[in-house]
Amino acid sequence: METQHVRMARPLACGFIESLAARFGPACQTSEAIRAQHGASESQYSTVLPDAVVFAISTQDVVDCVNLCRDAGVAIVPYGAGTSLEGHTLPLEGGVSLDLTRMDAVLSVNHADFDCTVQPGIRREALNTHLRDSGLFFPIDPGANATIGGMASTRASGTNAVRYGTMREAVLGLEVVTPQGKVIRTGTRAKKSAAGYDLTRLYIGSEGTLGVITAVTLRLHPVPEAIMAATCPFESLAGAIETVVGAFHCSVPMARIELLDSMQIRAVNLRSKLGLPEAPTLFFEFHGTPAGVTEQVETVRALAAGNGGGEFQWATHAEDRSRLWRARHESYYAAVNLRPGAIGLTTDVCVPMSRLAECILATRADLDKCSVPATILGHVGDGNFHLVFSIDPNAPHEMAEVEAVNHRMVARALAMDGTCTGEHGVGYGKQQCLVDELGEDAVQVMRTIKQAMDPQNLFNPGKIFRL
Amino acid sequence: METQHVRMARPLACGFIESLAARFGPACQTSEAIRAQHGASESQYSTVLPDAVVFAISTQDVVDCVNLCRDAGVAIVPYGAGTSLEGHTLPLEGGVSLDLTRMDAVLSVNHADFDCTVQPGIRREALNTHLRDSGLFFPIDPGANATIGGMASTRASGTNAVRYGTMREAVLGLEVVTPQGKVIRTGTRAKKSAAGYDLTRLYIGSEGTLGVITAVTLRLHPVPEAIMAATCPFESLAGAIETVVGAFHCSVPMARIELLDSMQIRAVNLRSKLGLPEAPTLFFEFHGTPAGVTEQVETVRALAAGNGGGEFQWATHAEDRSRLWRARHESYYAAVNLRPGAIGLTTDVCVPMSRLAECILATRADLDKCSVPATILGHVGDGNFHLVFSIDPNAPHEMAEVEAVNHRMVARALAMDGTCTGEHGVGYGKQQCLVDELGEDAVQVMRTIKQAMDPQNLFNPGKIFRL
Repeated sequence: METQHVRMARPLACGFIESLAARFGPACQTSEAIRAQHGASESQYSTVLPDAVVFAISTQDVVDCVNLCRDAGVAIVPYGAGTSLEGHTLPLEGGVSLDLTRMDAVLSVNHADFDCTVQPGIRREALNTHLRDSGLFFPIDPGANATIGGMASTRASGTNAVRYGTMREAVLGLEVVTPQGKVIRTGTRAKKSAAGYDLTRLYIGSEGTLGVITAVTLRLHPVPEAIMAATCPFESLAGAIETVVGAFHCSVPMARIELLDSMQIRAVNLRSKLGLPEAPTLFFEFHGTPAGVTEQVETVRALAAGNGGGEFQWATHAEDRSRLWRARHESYYAAVNLRPGAIGLTTDVCVPMSRLAECILATRADLDKCSVPATILGHVGDGNFHLVFSIDPNAPHEMAEVEAVNHRMVARALAMDGTCTGEHGVGYGKQQCLVDELGEDAVQVMRTIKQAMDPQNLFNPGKIFRL
Repeated sequence: METQHVRMARPLACGFIESLAARFGPACQTSEAIRAQHGASESQYSTVLPDAVVFAISTQDVVDCVNLCRDAGVAIVPYGAGTSLEGHTLPLEGGVSLDLTRMDAVLSVNHADFDCTVQPGIRREALNTHLRDSGLFFPIDPGANATIGGMASTRASGTNAVRYGTMREAVLGLEVVTPQGKVIRTGTRAKKSAAGYDLTRLYIGSEGTLGVITAVTLRLHPVPEAIMAATCPFESLAGAIETVVGAFHCSVPMARIELLDSMQIRAVNLRSKLGLPEAPTLFFEFHGTPAGVTEQVETVRALAAGNGGGEFQWATHAEDRSRLWRARHESYYAAVNLRPGAIGLTTDVCVPMSRLAECILATRADLDKCSVPATILGHVGDGNFHLVFSIDPNAPHEMAEVEAVNHRMVARALAMDGTCTGEHGVGYGKQQCLVDELGEDAVQVMRTIKQAMDPQNLFNPGKIFRL
């Protein structure tokens, strides 16, 4: 887990920037400010400047940019909202940061099939705003208002995954520009297919290392007839977790079940004025028919009561629900801001449900010995949880201490047959963790694929693994 | 769609069979009978003999067999139940048919996590028998009593996919022996992960062309509290289909919704003595809480009534349900047997729900002009359906006529943004369809992956695409 890195820029071919500028005009930017914006990271990583930023507005732009970069041997890093947390968009070898946020159109909505096709730069909130009157919604919700292309690239998930799955399940097919400059399509609008290698799933989670996603066909869901959301405080972290495990065992089809520890509640209270009791708390959302939701609520209430849960506080109106989930989504910023001037570092593991309590409680015990403040929160219905540390950037020992906690947390999750990343991805920061998880031979298979598909190693080089 | 093919056997290295026999003893078989069994196909393809059949009983056996084959440049074709329908297990270049059916152990069942790990040779019915007292079940059900490894290799689905997904969703991780003889693991038991390329999904559906699956970790499901199954005859095919589309739009979480046309009903009546009215019929199964199932049934009954549906006939007891679904599963054989001495050919397309009625009805109209008898049936809740032809093997014009219908059916599905195969796979028979569906450049990406991972092209050569 390094936080500093030397930029290993390749020397730019003579005249490359000029040829880019000739093709893209003002859509090619080389100002320090724009390069710095695209070379920064949400998390603990230092800024690394690209040589240029190209703003694509069409698939043809992407093809032309890819061809120019390939011919000149220049690295290319696709860029969306820049909200990823493992340094995915850092242009480690310089080159072009290819900004796709201007490709943000909804290309089609097929109401009768519950699907839509969008350009990669649209953000998930904008997509749901577009769908507002259609009776459909796009459920995947990583918290950040990320772009759909970025979410596909990192295999994002978030609060609704327990019910609706992750980007792996949400994407029917992609349009991708390959390192050879070909525009391919990886799937149709059929709900399932056994036609050849699953290229869709290969690109999802490949973090921009195999191609540039230029369109995404997404599965949508009907807005449920009934939606109820609530919070419930618990006497102990263990009681909250046992409630989640119980709900899993009862197969309650909850839409969301989120854990926030008491420090995280303090943070969201401060930021979002929720006024919740400062205790380990579950945030729930139930989707279904009115009768179905009532049944779910009764089951979960009984489970909570048996595990030291307090009163359910209901967010009855749509606005109350929005406020609640906005507060949940801003948890990261809320936690970092607990300490003025701090920088954030978030961790991300996912374990089998049977090990969730043990994993969180052992991590809590480890945190008790750590001098850096951290909150615990997570998509516990999936067995996925995070720590958010608020680190003093001027105290180098803090980063070292945090990295040690993170290292132990990953090792603990792997020992429990879990994963080093439930949803944030590998990026720059978790490459050794990936090897620890799947072994050198499996990672070598990934490298083999990468080297075959991108023989010049120009697409987001230095991510997922070193070559 | 060729049905004959010349075996393009590679010349065997001198002493290869001897070295195989030295390593495997009686687990290496070269008798004509056993080779013929492994070189045959369930469908219309002619038998192609492997040079030898090796029965593996351990991952180490697989590793050793792979190493011997690789060093001698001999092809290797993984073999399970042999129930696939697109010629997947035909050893087109001779070599070794690697039979995995003796690797049929359940390695672990994790009740608290709803998962299990099995060897690839276990059949799905045996797995469910093993799970009988656990309160859990494995839902994926392609009809045939296939092996789990074979189902993973072909990305199988079947009757329950509308509710529980396909093998893509059912597999948490695999153990795979690579063409280099390495044993890799592609995932953990975590419910989700963003750790690196999705090798699990790459191997699922790769039809044995990238490695040999030696263990599968599967997601299981709790046996629902309430299960109800029923059949309902319709005045017209169109009415039955509209009921399915309506149920989709109402988001009824049905476990199964299957269509059988009247000729298929006649066939299952004859074979399984069901005594159903000879009419287009839907077979339903509802899973959930008692109240939830009641609610689903009411919605679907109202939809059926509005679309010319008749009385629901309930299979109330578990044995009645088993009988009903066994009859459904034997539909293929029932249909082929309508015509004494006939051989079967089944088609397989999947289209967006909005095009399902149009696609089936246009296919029905095409069949009306075809002299070869065929039934229509399918997993219509997914938009997936099949024809089963009963072809006179002594009348070559029949095969030509059937291939023309199949060709038009695939073209129709593709024009509707559907897929050439919902669940049977590409195998030997649908390679041009795959190119028609995704384009030459996408298939070229698949070839690039294949060539990088299996540079000698020894793993099930000649399947999915030609190199």
